[in-house]
Amino acid sequence: MPAISKKGQQMPASPIRKLVPFAEAAKARGVKIYHLNIGQPDIKTPPQMLDAVRNIDFEVLAYSHSAGFESYRRKLRQYYAQHNITLDYTDLLVTTGGSEAILFAMFSCLDAGDEVIVPEPFYANYNGFSMAGDVVVKPITAKIENNFALPPIEAFEELITPKTKAILICNPSNPTGYLYSKEELATLQKIVLKHDLFLFADEVYREFAYDGAQHHSILTLAGIEQHAVVVDSISKRFSACGARIGTLVSKNKEVIATAMKFAQARLSPPTLAQVAAEASLDVPQSYLKEVLAEYENRRNVLVAGLNQIPDVFCPSPKGAFYVTARLPIDDSERFCKWLLESFNHNGETVMLAPASGFYATKGLGKNEVRMAYVLNENDLKKSLACLAKGLEVYQQEVMGRVLVN
Amino acid sequence: MPAISKKGQQMPASPIRKLVPFAEAAKARGVKIYHLNIGQPDIKTPPQMLDAVRNIDFEVLAYSHSAGFESYRRKLRQYYAQHNITLDYTDLLVTTGGSEAILFAMFSCLDAGDEVIVPEPFYANYNGFSMAGDVVVKPITAKIENNFALPPIEAFEELITPKTKAILICNPSNPTGYLYSKEELATLQKIVLKHDLFLFADEVYREFAYDGAQHHSILTLAGIEQHAVVVDSISKRFSACGARIGTLVSKNKEVIATAMKFAQARLSPPTLAQVAAEASLDVPQSYLKEVLAEYENRRNVLVAGLNQIPDVFCPSPKGAFYVTARLPIDDSERFCKWLLESFNHNGETVMLAPASGFYATKGLGKNEVRMAYVLNENDLKKSLACLAKGLEVYQQEVMGRVLVN
Repeated sequence: MPAISKKGQQMPASPIRKLVPFAEAAKARGVKIYHLNIGQPDIKTPPQMLDAVRNIDFEVLAYSHSAGFESYRRKLRQYYAQHNITLDYTDLLVTTGGSEAILFAMFSCLDAGDEVIVPEPFYANYNGFSMAGDVVVKPITAKIENNFALPPIEAFEELITPKTKAILICNPSNPTGYLYSKEELATLQKIVLKHDLFLFADEVYREFAYDGAQHHSILTLAGIEQHAVVVDSISKRFSACGARIGTLVSKNKEVIATAMKFAQARLSPPTLAQVAAEASLDVPQSYLKEVLAEYENRRNVLVAGLNQIPDVFCPSPKGAFYVTARLPIDDSERFCKWLLESFNHNGETVMLAPASGFYATKGLGKNEVRMAYVLNENDLKKSLACLAKGLEVYQQEVMGRVLVN
Repeated sequence: MPAISKKGQQMPASPIRKLVPFAEAAKARGVKIYHLNIGQPDIKTPPQMLDAVRNIDFEVLAYSHSAGFESYRRKLRQYYAQHNITLDYTDLLVTTGGSEAILFAMFSCLDAGDEVIVPEPFYANYNGFSMAGDVVVKPITAKIENNFALPPIEAFEELITPKTKAILICNPSNPTGYLYSKEELATLQKIVLKHDLFLFADEVYREFAYDGAQHHSILTLAGIEQHAVVVDSISKRFSACGARIGTLVSKNKEVIATAMKFAQARLSPPTLAQVAAEASLDVPQSYLKEVLAEYENRRNVLVAGLNQIPDVFCPSPKGAFYVTARLPIDDSERFCKWLLESFNHNGETVMLAPASGFYATKGLGKNEVRMAYVLNENDLKKSLACLAKGLEVYQQEVMGRVLVN
């Protein structure tokens, strides 16, 4: 029997999805699960987008242009202009989700053995995209005590080697919700210019900025036009995760031309979903305004609720729809699995993502979990009740047992 | 300005798609183009599939399971059973087109520097998927004089090194239409067992077998269950190329488990397209029967017409909807570009794919082109007229001019 690839063996399973079999088993036992483990919002997709799909009038479900519908790309310019980002429509490629945009950025800019610096905790799937091309992730640790702010410039300088080709940030961040300030972006601008690096920014949560804070795109930073590569997606903005429509954006023509070769190899992004994506550009501003207000309230409820549980600490992030919280536990993977396998509170439990999977540095995140506030206020409160009770029982029954053994 | 990746620089542009700008310019000049360059059929998608999409009743366009809808995977078992392929539904993953299935097969089975033997001419995008993971393609030349049959076993043995991890075939073949016989598959079976290699088979044209010939899947070959990995797609079967729904199939549990990790990294295949794909399983057999009869007739028209043009040679392949023909030309890339840029016949021209892009061995295919018979009989005849006239003019005006210079 031939052996599978080494990278396939080394690749970690998604910390977000690997607990799925335990959740399925719990459901089979009749336990209700509150899913805070995955960024799949309960928010309704704008009906305009689904109606556009319902009204398709073609008879052949054909390939699109490899870069996506030209009409969609042209209209996207206006979307970016609203965010003070001036683009030509040839500065962007439509991708199969933000995932593919990251993959194309990696393939186009980094070779096997090249290094990319990523502030941790980071979106765990960056590991998979890096592994695909044998790119080495160099983590730089952001600390929960600092609300996961960008580490100081010196910490970056220490990590840079001749192999370093890029820095990758997620702004606002999945999994911490941290929104980078203008000053922090200026720091990154300085580093990429000094060391001639690419700056990749995953900005799929661009719209989700709370407390009146403003999101700043790396595409607005002067002097790094040839360094900046943005990953974008409609998944979160319009609660359309299943569409699988993203965008790769860069003013660096060589990056786009190279990514286009990888895009041509896979022929085209999904056609039906592009119909929905194009319709998203006509969704009234009121939709996002309401969604934002809803998320901001949920964040308030979740963060306040978490900090009321004994020995739990959760910063109040200004963006996205995630928090990473510190819990009084020994091992977040074990705890999250236990919540599904061995616990229920009045027939209910909560599914969380162990933060250890979001750190590349071994041993970090063992007492942290990521929560996505993708449920309504009422369900969030029930989730908090499950978590509080779960922590109590886990500390007594599991951690207690460990201590006496 | 940071440099793009070496693999990005080395990666060839798609020979199928790189002529697109010249076609766009020709259209802008008012020239009508017959597209034989791309496997985008004019055949109608089964209305059941499009209706299923028109009738979606969900309010949130959500992620699906990373392996695809469970309901779809379970039903796919019956589809494979009809082709004498016995599977468990956990032996398959739903992918974003056959493209992603190939990518997952590469990532899961081969590391950077590993070698895959591929009979050439081969589907050019295999280059892109190999380059993404720094896999080395070792071509083994199939000859037009032999109708592109499988090269003899000795030719494979000569290419095998300690780095060889897999053989990749496309059956029936894009770009030649060649359908492998039972004996040829037995040869491959022997080689992969002897050298403990993976056997990847792209079987997306499984249904398209003419002259009463039968397609044999590598999944039916005894003794290589752990070696066989099949790439599949609904794109061609149901003229649904824009869906981007494929399947990766293997009885090797490790391959599927590893591919699943890459699948989880990209979250899920497109949801809307899976609705169409699931509905495809209820399309009556009569649909494919009619489509097959249509393609068989087109092949007859195209092959006969090509062989009537002076100095043109085209074998009559038994499968898929492509032919690779030899033309009396100096350079197929130059000729195909010239057809778009400098030629028209009564305001019409034809777009072909230069075969040089389907060979990995430099210099081969310079007098061959690939044609997809994805147009109706009438348009095929007009395309043939354009080609005949084009060859005449090209030989006189361009090749003649080269000779006198």
